[in-house]
Amino acid sequence: MKPLTSSLQSSLLPIFLLFVTTSVSLKVPRLSPTGGTFLHGNDWTQGRPSEASSPGFDPKDLQTFYYNQTLDHFNFRPDSFNTFQQRYLINSKHWGGSNISAPILAYLGAEEAIDIDISITGFLPENAIHFQALQIYIEHRYYGESMPFGSMEEAYKNASTLGYFNSAQAIADYAEILIHVKKQLHAENSPVIVVGGSYGGMLASWFRLKYPHVALGALASSAPILYFDDIVPPETGYYFVASRDFREASETCYQIIKRSWTEIDNIASKPEGLASLSMKFRTCRPLTNSSELKDYLESMYAHTAQYDIPPRYPVTVVCGGIDGASSTNDTLTKIFAGVVAYEGNRSCYPIPRNGTESGVGWHWQTCSDIVVPMGISNDTMFPPYKFDLNKYIDNCKALYGVPPRPHWVTTYYGGHDIKLTLNRFASNIIFSNGLRDPYSSGGVLDDISDTVVAVHTKNGSHCLDILRSNHTTDPDWLVNQRKIEVRIINGWIAKYYADLQALK
Amino acid sequence: MKPLTSSLQSSLLPIFLLFVTTSVSLKVPRLSPTGGTFLHGNDWTQGRPSEASSPGFDPKDLQTFYYNQTLDHFNFRPDSFNTFQQRYLINSKHWGGSNISAPILAYLGAEEAIDIDISITGFLPENAIHFQALQIYIEHRYYGESMPFGSMEEAYKNASTLGYFNSAQAIADYAEILIHVKKQLHAENSPVIVVGGSYGGMLASWFRLKYPHVALGALASSAPILYFDDIVPPETGYYFVASRDFREASETCYQIIKRSWTEIDNIASKPEGLASLSMKFRTCRPLTNSSELKDYLESMYAHTAQYDIPPRYPVTVVCGGIDGASSTNDTLTKIFAGVVAYEGNRSCYPIPRNGTESGVGWHWQTCSDIVVPMGISNDTMFPPYKFDLNKYIDNCKALYGVPPRPHWVTTYYGGHDIKLTLNRFASNIIFSNGLRDPYSSGGVLDDISDTVVAVHTKNGSHCLDILRSNHTTDPDWLVNQRKIEVRIINGWIAKYYADLQALK
Repeated sequence: MKPLTSSLQSSLLPIFLLFVTTSVSLKVPRLSPTGGTFLHGNDWTQGRPSEASSPGFDPKDLQTFYYNQTLDHFNFRPDSFNTFQQRYLINSKHWGGSNISAPILAYLGAEEAIDIDISITGFLPENAIHFQALQIYIEHRYYGESMPFGSMEEAYKNASTLGYFNSAQAIADYAEILIHVKKQLHAENSPVIVVGGSYGGMLASWFRLKYPHVALGALASSAPILYFDDIVPPETGYYFVASRDFREASETCYQIIKRSWTEIDNIASKPEGLASLSMKFRTCRPLTNSSELKDYLESMYAHTAQYDIPPRYPVTVVCGGIDGASSTNDTLTKIFAGVVAYEGNRSCYPIPRNGTESGVGWHWQTCSDIVVPMGISNDTMFPPYKFDLNKYIDNCKALYGVPPRPHWVTTYYGGHDIKLTLNRFASNIIFSNGLRDPYSSGGVLDDISDTVVAVHTKNGSHCLDILRSNHTTDPDWLVNQRKIEVRIINGWIAKYYADLQALK
Repeated sequence: MKPLTSSLQSSLLPIFLLFVTTSVSLKVPRLSPTGGTFLHGNDWTQGRPSEASSPGFDPKDLQTFYYNQTLDHFNFRPDSFNTFQQRYLINSKHWGGSNISAPILAYLGAEEAIDIDISITGFLPENAIHFQALQIYIEHRYYGESMPFGSMEEAYKNASTLGYFNSAQAIADYAEILIHVKKQLHAENSPVIVVGGSYGGMLASWFRLKYPHVALGALASSAPILYFDDIVPPETGYYFVASRDFREASETCYQIIKRSWTEIDNIASKPEGLASLSMKFRTCRPLTNSSELKDYLESMYAHTAQYDIPPRYPVTVVCGGIDGASSTNDTLTKIFAGVVAYEGNRSCYPIPRNGTESGVGWHWQTCSDIVVPMGISNDTMFPPYKFDLNKYIDNCKALYGVPPRPHWVTTYYGGHDIKLTLNRFASNIIFSNGLRDPYSSGGVLDDISDTVVAVHTKNGSHCLDILRSNHTTDPDWLVNQRKIEVRIINGWIAKYYADLQALK
């Protein structure tokens, strides 16, 4: 594995890019375990409303700390005792204090530097006053400044240094830091609510399951915790939902996209076909194969579906472009009109090369414990793709020298028959989803019990409730979803205070 | 660390010896982290009713299997992928089969070879018919035949090979094997009840907490899961309960033992004092210091209290000897009469040397995650002893080159404010205890919720309910305790079957 000097994680690219990375990395084992095309640059920001930082966010209120973290919590070999400096930030501006056991809202970092999340996350700063809560934001190991072995170059060197980089170690880190902070603040009785989105949402729900003595409850936004083993059939998975989004926006748009792939291949197979495609799609450099274009388009559709955010609704924008090109019958001209509608009119469009990839941290994670078997069935608008676990494993082994453990997540955290196993166990988890988010296909969409509940919105997209700030243009259903979440958490905390009085 | 060629684990000494090891190893950090005196031989079997093997036990019904177990579940370094053969045994004689989703009773091995437990355990074979249950007995890693690195000598070489030897890895092993077995038997819907005693009881309750999707419930017998950090104050700990047992049996006996320690020291400090003590206690070799005798006696008292089993009640036997020596006023003559009453009249008594120790596996465990801070307060019949964590850590480091992690158990499994943290989380755990068992001081003695319950008996001792077979001489309270446990488990299974029908 070549040394890495830069990555998405160390830059300040907008968070959603990483989720694109996620979606793509999860689909593309046909090229490399996680490989495929990853999108660079700022081209995609147009899809979202302006939200560079949350209105509740003021960097001056945040204090940065470093915790001397154990490298390996589950082993007692001499090298397990190595430590690294793990970054966390605290905002105590609105905290009611330990005297009244005021709550702690803990944001569990995911696959990026924690600064990125802090600058965007709305849920914590916007609700801190209401809860009189301390806010703590903890960076995930191997991202940002929380780098074992002294540097990213060392940490990402090979499987021997990357081996400690997995979700079980990460949530053990969070447990240690939260226990430490509570002790430092004499806040042992303060209830902790953990919050996370996407992979971070998985971590939040898993944290409540594994460390109920540290966190009273979890808000797990857009957490596809069921996207493991064979729990989600490809027929109803990520690409099915993304296609449904397009179909709901426009049947004609959906059909045009669906037939565009063979059209691309047809042209590409002709003499000068790639040059013709390059011209038609105004690419900044000549295409070297048709996959580059297809991956680019797939990623755009996936991304717009995942972040189909009001008030713009990017899926509608793309379909508006496609359907609006009524002066032509040419499929690919229509498709390009969709690109222009979404990306804006540009002199050229930067199509990444195959295998270009920046989410190196996430890449490793999908080759260790986070193995999401994502296929594409025949009845979507995307080119079908059968997920081949053996090939996936081989690709990971070729890359890192070690295989992934595709069944470890369901072994350690469960997932199969989740209602049967958790309906009389566990409590205080909100699984929030937007049903337009393709990842909702791997989410918990039905209540498991009275206190392990699903809160979803028909028109919502990925992590809309917690990773975006309140906005004047927010539709009622979104405002309402956030209100429901706060009301449920209020209920947990009220019961906890009653218990605290009765039992301690 | 010197290579080890034999140990308690590889021999077939009776199980209770290991619990003596446990009790002593947990007390004796004043000598070495776990050191002190460990008792060898068959001298101690007199304390128990004859029970070499359970009446429900027939070796012919047991089939032995080996699972290719992952060395390190929580790491993806290349060496984490090494495997070892983990032994488990299945008795399917009474199993109702997968067609009716008949239950699985899983015995979670603890700090010894699994054969030992199987030959003694009563609960599984005796209740298999009632539950129509499959029985499975799983050996704990690093014990018996379940040895990583090919041999015990290699596995126990140093911290680099021992590092993988801890409770979190052990319960992950159990999860993998149980999932594997259910799959092999097409018994995915069969509810699993995990059962364990002492350290194995801790593992059983922790297993239900961490892997609720694998086990429906846990019977945790005599599991001192609260004996960590500062949860149990020394004033009410192990040696307090052991002393109370003696005091309840006889106030005079208690007082004689209490004053015997200074008497021993007084004599030992005189010229020829040790020779005189050696003669008085008929030791098989001359004592080299007074601690040898004191450790021997402490262990005997601790052991008799821990295994104060009906109908003989060893504490009463010892006190009968002490009180019965009415022809003398000499304290140590009385004490020796107690030894003779318990051990039988012998030509000589083998007093182990200081630091003799056979529980090498358990020794490591007390120097890694299972750090039980056991002190002795002034108001017991034992010589007081202040637990010194720093010294304990230093001793472990000197021995293994790595320190223990004394706070890891409460970080990973919890323990502080257990009722507050679990009363609205978790379900289906029975914490059974006998209040005469000194380890009950670290047990859960009050119900945590409707389904996480404490079942204890005033006169019970260590693991009496599950590790001993039914016996015609069993008192009503013991018969009743076992009945209650079965009734509770019946209830879990009935609810589960109803859920299964409704939800699947």
